[in-house]
Amino acid sequence: MTEMMKAAVKVRAAPGATQVKKVPCPKITPTEALVRVKIASICGTDLHIFDWDEWSQHRIRPPLIQGHEMAGEVERIGDEVTSVAKGDYVSFEGHIACGRCYECRTGQAHVCRNLRIMGIDRDGAFAEYVSVPAANLVKNDPSLPLEVATIQDPLGNAVQVVMNANVPGKSIAIFGLGPIGLMAAAVTKALSASQVIAVEYRNEMRKGLAKRLGADVVLESDATTVDRILELTNREGVNEVLEFSGAPPALKQALKVVRPGGGVHLLGLYSSPVSLDLSDDVIMRGVTLYGITGRRMFRTWYEMGGILRSGNVDLKPLVTHRFPLHEYEKALEVVRSRQCGKVVFEMET
Amino acid sequence: MTEMMKAAVKVRAAPGATQVKKVPCPKITPTEALVRVKIASICGTDLHIFDWDEWSQHRIRPPLIQGHEMAGEVERIGDEVTSVAKGDYVSFEGHIACGRCYECRTGQAHVCRNLRIMGIDRDGAFAEYVSVPAANLVKNDPSLPLEVATIQDPLGNAVQVVMNANVPGKSIAIFGLGPIGLMAAAVTKALSASQVIAVEYRNEMRKGLAKRLGADVVLESDATTVDRILELTNREGVNEVLEFSGAPPALKQALKVVRPGGGVHLLGLYSSPVSLDLSDDVIMRGVTLYGITGRRMFRTWYEMGGILRSGNVDLKPLVTHRFPLHEYEKALEVVRSRQCGKVVFEMET
Amino acid sequence: MTEMMKAAVKVRAAPGATQVKKVPCPKITPTEALVRVKIASICGTDLHIFDWDEWSQHRIRPPLIQGHEMAGEVERIGDEVTSVAKGDYVSFEGHIACGRCYECRTGQAHVCRNLRIMGIDRDGAFAEYVSVPAANLVKNDPSLPLEVATIQDPLGNAVQVVMNANVPGKSIAIFGLGPIGLMAAAVTKALSASQVIAVEYRNEMRKGLAKRLGADVVLESDATTVDRILELTNREGVNEVLEFSGAPPALKQALKVVRPGGGVHLLGLYSSPVSLDLSDDVIMRGVTLYGITGRRMFRTWYEMGGILRSGNVDLKPLVTHRFPLHEYEKALEVVRSRQCGKVVFEMET
Amino acid sequence: MTEMMKAAVKVRAAPGATQVKKVPCPKITPTEALVRVKIASICGTDLHIFDWDEWSQHRIRPPLIQGHEMAGEVERIGDEVTSVAKGDYVSFEGHIACGRCYECRTGQAHVCRNLRIMGIDRDGAFAEYVSVPAANLVKNDPSLPLEVATIQDPLGNAVQVVMNANVPGKSIAIFGLGPIGLMAAAVTKALSASQVIAVEYRNEMRKGLAKRLGADVVLESDATTVDRILELTNREGVNEVLEFSGAPPALKQALKVVRPGGGVHLLGLYSSPVSLDLSDDVIMRGVTLYGITGRRMFRTWYEMGGILRSGNVDLKPLVTHRFPLHEYEKALEVVRSRQCGKVVFEMET
Repeated sequence: MTEMMKAAVKVRAAPGATQVKKVPCPKITPTEALVRVKIASICGTDLHIFDWDEWSQHRIRPPLIQGHEMAGEVERIGDEVTSVAKGDYVSFEGHIACGRCYECRTGQAHVCRNLRIMGIDRDGAFAEYVSVPAANLVKNDPSLPLEVATIQDPLGNAVQVVMNANVPGKSIAIFGLGPIGLMAAAVTKALSASQVIAVEYRNEMRKGLAKRLGADVVLESDATTVDRILELTNREGVNEVLEFSGAPPALKQALKVVRPGGGVHLLGLYSSPVSLDLSDDVIMRGVTLYGITGRRMFRTWYEMGGILRSGNVDLKPLVTHRFPLHEYEKALEVVRSRQCGKVVFEMET
Repeated sequence: MTEMMKAAVKVRAAPGATQVKKVPCPKITPTEALVRVKIASICGTDLHIFDWDEWSQHRIRPPLIQGHEMAGEVERIGDEVTSVAKGDYVSFEGHIACGRCYECRTGQAHVCRNLRIMGIDRDGAFAEYVSVPAANLVKNDPSLPLEVATIQDPLGNAVQVVMNANVPGKSIAIFGLGPIGLMAAAVTKALSASQVIAVEYRNEMRKGLAKRLGADVVLESDATTVDRILELTNREGVNEVLEFSGAPPALKQALKVVRPGGGVHLLGLYSSPVSLDLSDDVIMRGVTLYGITGRRMFRTWYEMGGILRSGNVDLKPLVTHRFPLHEYEKALEVVRSRQCGKVVFEMET
Repeated sequence: MTEMMKAAVKVRAAPGATQVKKVPCPKITPTEALVRVKIASICGTDLHIFDWDEWSQHRIRPPLIQGHEMAGEVERIGDEVTSVAKGDYVSFEGHIACGRCYECRTGQAHVCRNLRIMGIDRDGAFAEYVSVPAANLVKNDPSLPLEVATIQDPLGNAVQVVMNANVPGKSIAIFGLGPIGLMAAAVTKALSASQVIAVEYRNEMRKGLAKRLGADVVLESDATTVDRILELTNREGVNEVLEFSGAPPALKQALKVVRPGGGVHLLGLYSSPVSLDLSDDVIMRGVTLYGITGRRMFRTWYEMGGILRSGNVDLKPLVTHRFPLHEYEKALEVVRSRQCGKVVFEMET
Repeated sequence: MTEMMKAAVKVRAAPGATQVKKVPCPKITPTEALVRVKIASICGTDLHIFDWDEWSQHRIRPPLIQGHEMAGEVERIGDEVTSVAKGDYVSFEGHIACGRCYECRTGQAHVCRNLRIMGIDRDGAFAEYVSVPAANLVKNDPSLPLEVATIQDPLGNAVQVVMNANVPGKSIAIFGLGPIGLMAAAVTKALSASQVIAVEYRNEMRKGLAKRLGADVVLESDATTVDRILELTNREGVNEVLEFSGAPPALKQALKVVRPGGGVHLLGLYSSPVSLDLSDDVIMRGVTLYGITGRRMFRTWYEMGGILRSGNVDLKPLVTHRFPLHEYEKALEVVRSRQCGKVVFEMET
């Protein structure tokens, strides 16, 4: 390897302000590995940072190489690393947990109090090389296609939600068909839910993808949604709702279609407080609202790897756009358009 | 027994309008039992019906004998009843489940879709006799004092919440020290929570009771509550929050003091929608909100009976006022004052 | 309907001794329904009773109509029945629980202390008509084929085991490819286990069926089985073992191939005590042994119905032989041969 | 500190062969801490190693300083240690997990495939100083008495078992009243089990301790045990059995007294294979057998700390004998006699 590499660098605290240029290759500590990036994918968060929204202004310290979804090959390992070796085909868990707090020491590292995130709090994968704590690396099955391997970070979000909802044999409504919602539809179907009802707001492209990936029914989100879901479920409602939209009206619909004793699994983030009729919709009906974030380290990764290995779910149709890294802005505009599944950067070799 | 009995009857659809008078003894069907009431206790719901609030106007059809908390003795059984016998010392589960809906057939009868409630949808226990479906009767341990036996319906609410929170060894905050919150404090302490922090708003009498029943710390609900709970928990927050207040500000405090990955268990009802910062408080921190109602039929009753039998919890101090049935309005005024624990009617014999 | 019907009757306490003949149609009580049998299937237990083994001698009181797996149509209902109506397409849960014991009242009716079983403790479904407690009837989806509807009792066994093992994404070994083991293989695959390894002893026919129904790998049970499973699992073992063989050597293999912290789910019955190295195989490795019987009433039935509705599992290939009822002995001989999947009686109409 | 310290050293591969003598103080790596031992306690395993039983011959490589139960003060920390500081009052988890295997990465580090144990696979705490991986250290509450702090390793065994059995309100039988069984009795009582029935074989001293620590009933293990437990439980059996005896007859009794759907929690090790009637006792009754070992890292430690902090359990009576380290053999003879609770070494200061 050379000492310089190509990377997309957010160069200063402003909208846009991202240059694809040569920078020094990252150094690694004795417990890290250097990984050659073969493919990386774009998360909605990357668009927020690009646009320099309020959250970004408080969190991000440029210059920064973004990117927390990837697959690649281990190029070099630190002196104390034994869990991976040069040449391994890997992806990484983007959340770096401290390992010392109560949450980390009781199996809840995904809500570690001292969490740092690849591509947000330190340089990420929109580059030819990335340094990663070895503990965060996960070896991929050699047969896993690159375009699936790279999307395992958001797929892990979806899998954590679906596994939390224990879907086999149950009726499931999925609100919000962005990439994670679409993945959840595919996984829910692959786990033999009795019916998968997917709901999206004005996005025919994504509704089509949902159908293709396994949703039994795809509905437009409008004033009739609640009634249509009740019709589809013998007027009893669904067992569980998976909420990825982050849209308050969707959550209100969710609470009207979930059956008594059911669960609403929340991963989509709401940009403002949400008003809920807790008494009638939640308490009197014995409903549970689960806040879900990240991936269980590393239980979710093993579950995800196993589900992919089953051969029951094919996510390749989800990757709709591929760009070289130097078309960074063009790729982000596709993400912004919402006329896409996942958008990936393929690294030139 | 005679054919007439004394009862407190809500005689018409209006505030107050309750007369203690002689009425015919209830008949029983082949699957019911007639129970002689020895003691009955007043629930907040009884005050709502007395006051004829909006909920009552929609639900209650006078004339009605209220009362869904009691203990007494089986007087007579229907032809098909084998589970209880004349002379048995019993209390009843006030929720009558249909037994046929999905919820009933999957162990969730407490959220049965066709639920009817004793003392609300049919005549209850503020009378010398009450007819009860035999399946709803629970035999009490002979050593159980009457004043504890009668409060098992609300105690079952508390026990369901506490068992749901799996409290042993955990730090627990309890918001709202009405009778159910007080019971929860006693049970949480009896199950060896690491610390029991109880919070109430302007009610020294109940705060004193909380201390006596087992709370380690009792706090006033004010602008300092969150900070004081964080101080008490090494600035990490409590493992679980039990919310009985039904006050939106308390719920907001609850979400600030629960640790990442923790649970907030909601039993107190809110009189209006509540606005929540779901993203920061719930989703990003992996918090779960559990809506809880009623008692698991009949798992909670067995758990409750067992906890009482352990001898680790003494609820007699909670029963602060006793009245004969003919002082009905006086008793309800004590409940209204909130300067009380549980208020009971002792039937004249 | 006429007053007489055709039935296969075990006429006396002896091997064989079963006559297909005309007998009076069953009466029903006010809480029962009379069901016209369209199809019924044979369980291994039916062969034990036919052969009059030791267990049968203690349990069965001839004359008896056997048969606890069926599908049919409601012909008539008792006066108090509201859950089904004439013409409904139904199957039944064969276990009749008392509803009054601790187990029944805490969601464990499948291990009711006073359990009675259709076709064992009262007349069953090897007849033109059968009377069934209405609470035991389950309505089938109209699209469910008769040959699948009839095998829901054993399929429910399999589904209870598979759901208990929480298989999605996990590696699973299944020992014993009798009909229930075969069903478990199909369901495990349909729930996206990472790999389904099925093991059988000298039965190529059933090994072929396992492959066809979804097993990824099918192994002969011999001295190499443990090593081959370890090879297939990176020498780490499988997450969970489903044990349907009832063969002590299979259980010993199971304990050698399950990974630390895993579970062994036991449904197959052992005809004699089994000697286990509990310290090394179970305790020091944190393994759990689950005894499983029957079906969760009625959670398993809903899960099963939902999994079938998903369309991910096709059990029709499992039904390998069909007979009219008057070929009773011939059908039982096929079951005895073990060269079959499920064997069914189709009722003449 | 000086460079030499006093330690009890197993000097060669033979029975006894343990000398209390001066040896060099241990070195620490950058991720370890040096801890000054204030108190240490003796485990049954220490007696096995002293006696050089078959297991020891295969596992232990002298010279070795034994001892995996202790409390003390951090004397010095390695360069990379941030989780503890000099002067901290600590105990340690004796199991050193690899952190890289599937079990470690999925919250099952207590059954890590590469487990090493303090005082068994590396030098332990029967010395003035011990080096410990910092990740294994747990800070004690300052108010925790030394004699309780030192027994947290076995107490953690007991707490893991009791928490696994979810005891509040349940009837519990405890077989085997060695120190861990006694601790389990105390904790079970402190968690408000409905009744705690303890069983021991010919050891009045320990039966007396069980009573003092919280058992409601203490029974002799003999031919009447099963019947007496059934009498105490309305002939229904106990909800859960905690098995610490490691005696096959006790396990057989356990299976006869556990109710259908209940659990048997196995921690005591059996010196030879055990023959079980799995069909009648386990499978047909839906019983679960849990193999339990070690402590959940570190959930059990937090639970244990919390339960101790509740003040509901007092374990000081359990520590019956105290010795200086130079009376090593005398202390071990007391353990051998079984006429004791826990036996501790108090380090001279």
